[in-house]
This record gives sequence, C-alpha cells and structure tokens, in this order.
Amino acid sequence: MNAGEGFFDPAGASRLPADRWRDGMLEHGTELVADEVPVALSYNGISHAVMLASPQDLEDFAVGFSLGERIVHDARDIYDIEVDEAVNGIAIEMRIAGGAMLRLKETRRARTGKTGCGLCGVESLERFDDDTFATPIAGTREPGVTPDALHRAMAAMGQRQHLHHATGAVHAAGWANLEGELLCVREDIGRHNALDKLVGALVREGADVTRGFAVVTSRASFEMVQKAARAGFPLLAAISAPTALAVKVAQGAGVTLLGFVRGGRHVVYTHPQRIAPLAG
Amino acid sequence: MNAGEGFFDPAGASRLPADRWRDGMLEHGTELVADEVPVALSYNGISHAVMLASPQDLEDFAVGFSLGERIVHDARDIYDIEVDEAVNGIAIEMRIAGGAMLRLKETRRARTGKTGCGLCGVESLERFDDDTFATPIAGTREPGVTPDALHRAMAAMGQRQHLHHATGAVHAAGWANLEGELLCVREDIGRHNALDKLVGALVREGADVTRGFAVVTSRASFEMVQKAARAGFPLLAAISAPTALAVKVAQGAGVTLLGFVRGGRHVVYTHPQRIAPLAG
Repeated sequence: MNAGEGFFDPAGASRLPADRWRDGMLEHGTELVADEVPVALSYNGISHAVMLASPQDLEDFAVGFSLGERIVHDARDIYDIEVDEAVNGIAIEMRIAGGAMLRLKETRRARTGKTGCGLCGVESLERFDDDTFATPIAGTREPGVTPDALHRAMAAMGQRQHLHHATGAVHAAGWANLEGELLCVREDIGRHNALDKLVGALVREGADVTRGFAVVTSRASFEMVQKAARAGFPLLAAISAPTALAVKVAQGAGVTLLGFVRGGRHVVYTHPQRIAPLAG
Repeated sequence: MNAGEGFFDPAGASRLPADRWRDGMLEHGTELVADEVPVALSYNGISHAVMLASPQDLEDFAVGFSLGERIVHDARDIYDIEVDEAVNGIAIEMRIAGGAMLRLKETRRARTGKTGCGLCGVESLERFDDDTFATPIAGTREPGVTPDALHRAMAAMGQRQHLHHATGAVHAAGWANLEGELLCVREDIGRHNALDKLVGALVREGADVTRGFAVVTSRASFEMVQKAARAGFPLLAAISAPTALAVKVAQGAGVTLLGFVRGGRHVVYTHPQRIAPLAG
C-alpha cells in the first residue's frame, strides 16, 4: 500500500528488502511489512496456547483472550500479566485466581491427549455445541444507534488504522459511543485478535459497553459474534459480510449484527430494534 | 454485495431475512449469506479437531488439511474419506495408514492435557520452532513465471469466485500453469481452508505442482506460506500483503512470495529468480 512512503516506520512493522514491479518497471527497494509474532500464553506457569499476533497492546490481548475463551469470567480474576520477549516470540505469563485455574485444569484434563484446531480446544461436534450456543446473551438493551452514528464511526476507523496504512496487512476493531465517536481502536494481523484486544482495552478501562457499539474492518465470522456476545456488546458492525453461522449466533445471543457498513449502505441481519429510527 | 440479485442460490450459501439500508432508505428483504459449518475431522475413529469451513469440496479439504498439518506425509496414506452430515455440522472420517496413526497418537500423547489454539496443537514457543522452521524446502526449481502470466491468473480468479460473488464473504485459492491459465480454484470462508482445499484437489488429481504457481485472494500469513512450502509450491502470489514472518518462512523454505498482485503491480519479497525476465 503506502509502504515505503511514510516518514517513520511504525511499531509492529519491519522494513524488508523487496522488488516492486509496476507496469513493466522493476524497482529494488524496501517494503514495510506487518510483524506476525508467535505469542505464547500461560496461566499460573502452565503453557496454554501460541497465537500469532501483532506485538502491540498485548496486555489488552491477554485480558480479551482470557475472557473470550472463558478462562476467566471476570477480568478481576487475572491478578497479574507479564509480557516478555522470548527466543521465538513473546511470552505472556498470567497469574489467575485459584478457582479459574482449577476450572481450566479440569477442562484440559477432560481433553487429555487431544489437540484442538480451528476452534480453541474443540475436537468434536458435541463440544462445539456445548461451547457455542450456551453463550450468555447480551440482553435486549437498546442503545439506539442511528445510521449516521454508525457510518461516522466506520469512516473514522480509516484514520486510526496506522499499522494498516503502513503495511496493508492488518485488521482493526473499534468501539464507538452512541454518537458514533470512536473511543478506542486496536489493530492486529488477526481479526479475532483485534477484537480480543478491543475487549481487553475496554474492560481494563472499566468502560460501560452497553452504551455504544463495536465496528470491525473485516467480515463477521461466528467467532467474532461469539466474542462480542461474551463481552456484552449489544451491536457489532462489520465492513464486510457475515457468515450464516454468525447470523444464527447473533440471533440467539441477542446481538444486533450489521454487515457491509460502507459507502452509505449497510445491512441489518439481526435485532434491528437497536437501530434508532431516522431523525426527521 | 450482489446478494439477492442472482438467479439462483449457489451451494454453500443460505438466504436469510435482512434489512438493507441505503442512503436513508430501509428495505426489508433477504440476503445470501455464506455458510460457515463446523467440520469435525477424525482419524481411525479418533476425534482430532473441529474446523469452521464452507461445506464444499470437503474431500479436498480433508486431504489438504492432513498433509498441511503433517498428519500424513503422503496422500496415499489416507485410505478412505467419508463425509457425513452430523447433528451440529459435518463429520469427516478418515482411515489412515498405521504408521501415520501411530505418529499422530504419539504427538497427541506428548501434548497430553494441553489445548492448542491459534497454531494447531502448539502450546509453547519451543514447539512452534520445531514445527515451523524445519519445513521441507520447496527447492530451487525455476518455473519461470512472467509478470503477464501472474496477472492473467489473478484477473481470472475474479471470474471463478462464484460463492464470493454471491455472498461477499469467502476467500479463494487457485492454481495456474506457467502461462497463467487458471486450472483449479477452491473457495472457503477461511483463507487457510481455501489453500488446504486447493492442495488437496491438486494432490488428488496427481498434478505436477512444480510447473505452475498458486494465487490467493487474501493476505499471506506465515501459515499460508508454510502450507505452500509443505505442498511443494514454488511460488505463492497474494492479492494483498504478506506478514514479516511469512517473508521469513518463504525465504527459508525456498518459496517465491509475491504480494499486492493487482492493478498491474506486484511486489516480490523472496526468491525473485523464479520471475521470468520480461519478453522483448
């Protein structure tokens, strides 16, 4: 994208040699490329998972991931987060409450000898059902978002995606108030990570997530909706398409799901009552 | 996107009720939304993982996934693939060779009580190193791809993305010969799955993957490059950006990695010797 044209190299990107080809002309130079770093998460000294992520806002990520995966049900059960460079990546060591750790150990014991993939730790369809549809519902709170506020927030996202402008490779998740004012933005090479970081940032700030909405610069998969529901977000607006399973989960969880929010248009898939009637 | 405007609903999509909003006008109707289906993979009767995928070409997916995750090192070690509808999704049951199953069981035993997330079964940075950088290198074969062939193949992708045109939600991976003729395209809601399906399709056809290149309608993460390297693809061309780790892995594995292949431009990040000099 704009790689190589900026005045400084932002954090989370590396400048690498590359050949640029354009209309038959080849130019040797460098490109800014988004870092993708293996991040190992451990709880009370026990390795849990390695995620690939952009190396910013990792405390936010740690909190959002732990809540999204239901390792803790309350951020106050995370007593301590330490982020350290390690040989092959970054290590995040968390100290969590005894009860949460006990639950985690039991879950892990029940899955003995099984590897999870695609869905975190889910190795059979029965478990998928247990883990998925029994999400806490987001309730029927009515934030009353106007289409104007919605599009104002999405438009503002563009100006806040610093890493994306430099590298063309990263997603963003943002939180806006009911007026469409963008209060918080987090970027990551992974769209799920970006949403985890946003959730973590809001929880750490003690924000009231019932009075606003989330916007994401990606599609909306079922896991995105699940994360939004678990964080208590009443409304999730995606710049691109949702999946059918995302719509189903949003319907069940009470989340208002919007897609294709761009160019003065959007589509409301579930719970349209939260979109305020037009003024005038 | 074009949802609701087609003459028929393609496989892998569901028509759901939705409200379309455009420039202040609200219209009740329906939208075509891409299916996202939990797919449970099992080997010799033992559950292995649940992936979320588009429900097409699942035999291809089964083969590509098994090779990409190195559960088998040769597709001939998969004796049988059965794809069946299940209560919460689709079950793929594979029968694999005894040696491969023994290896899989040992790997799983070594990870006893650990859940994997983000990276399949990888729970600590040490294992990440083992599993990642010791990939078989793709060698120094020189397919001699011209920029013209490259852009011809990428342009042709657009016409073959039927599910994407209907839903706006899916990625595609394609395989082209040295003339840029697109020989095989696979679509999926997940870009990694689309590449797995492509690998599986080519392997099942017995295609010579040294004489051509892969194109993907997404970014290039390190896992995409790893899959390409393990499949023996000499060149991977992405319509969007790579990550720094993708570039590093491509460098080490001997894969030519291109990004931003669109609008008469592209960037070559590694092993440019495989791009043929311009004619004339």
